[in-house]
Amino acid sequence: MGTGSSGSAATPDRRGRPRIRVLRVGHRAGRDPRLTTHVALVARAFGAEAMYLHPPDDGVARSLAGVRERWGGTFEVLPAPSWKDVLRSSSAPVVHLTMYGLPLARALPALRRERELLVVVGGAKVPPALYGAATYNVSVGSQPHSEVGALAVLLAELRGLPGPRPLPGARHRIVPSARGKAVVVARAGSGR
Amino acid sequence: MGTGSSGSAATPDRRGRPRIRVLRVGHRAGRDPRLTTHVALVARAFGAEAMYLHPPDDGVARSLAGVRERWGGTFEVLPAPSWKDVLRSSSAPVVHLTMYGLPLARALPALRRERELLVVVGGAKVPPALYGAATYNVSVGSQPHSEVGALAVLLAELRGLPGPRPLPGARHRIVPSARGKAVVVARAGSGR
Repeated sequence: MGTGSSGSAATPDRRGRPRIRVLRVGHRAGRDPRLTTHVALVARAFGAEAMYLHPPDDGVARSLAGVRERWGGTFEVLPAPSWKDVLRSSSAPVVHLTMYGLPLARALPALRRERELLVVVGGAKVPPALYGAATYNVSVGSQPHSEVGALAVLLAELRGLPGPRPLPGARHRIVPSARGKAVVVARAGSGR
Repeated sequence: MGTGSSGSAATPDRRGRPRIRVLRVGHRAGRDPRLTTHVALVARAFGAEAMYLHPPDDGVARSLAGVRERWGGTFEVLPAPSWKDVLRSSSAPVVHLTMYGLPLARALPALRRERELLVVVGGAKVPPALYGAATYNVSVGSQPHSEVGALAVLLAELRGLPGPRPLPGARHRIVPSARGKAVVVARAGSGR
């Protein structure tokens, strides 16, 4: 299943949950910008610190910068011209989400013990070398579905369901509502 | 939060989990077929029985028919020219997934007691009337992210993580692997 200790100096976050970065491989600019944007938004909303995007796409990075400006936090999309370089320069164990992998339920105890993780999701065509490069190849069910769905479920299992609290620096924040849409907007000139 | 009993004659499945159908509202054909296809694939992989698609899109329905042919099960995409008609003709309580809704963690106990549910996800523009028509408006975090991710997490919470077992009638089935891609293909002429 892969090593249980990362051997790095990384520390988990305050609640003992693994720190997570995501790597999205095989993005096809112009082909499906919304799908990759959804991967990034899920990574952000479920507590990942950043997403490396291979190949890079300024449009996606700008969308997420706009989300950060409005909704706060520090999540960013970082360009990854080479996915192999991301793996080489990362000390974190690598979890590759793939329908061919071992069931998530069985991998979870080991994953939860890690201090940090690099979660890799591919698109329609996954580079074959990725399977051997990963510490863990993990599936969320053995049916074809969506990297967006698989990532959300994995992150919810590792970091818990995201809650209603706004992120630091948010200019807009939602007030959860049973029936409507309640958003509080920071006053102009009120600083951060 | 909404009524706890559906008052219908529906029965939950053998394990006492709610039966689920999904309604995808606001699909824009030609604009983003892959996103709606991912919603359908997640609905299928995480145990929903069918997805109503509004407005209808034969291309998406055909994609899912191809997945069913290869990977088994009975999940289908059904055309929904009117989303209001789907709600009117459904006896199931309606769960609308929206970032403006009440946090999922608080709604889960009531949702898990339901025998059946109709889960509604919208796209970029959600019809305002949907909020009032829903039994529950529920959020998976109060950040903008993805209907694909929200649906996957909700279904995993209601029906458990999908496992590695193939569905009835599958012609292809994956053998979970730590390192590679192992698929068993039914022999031609071997029936189902």
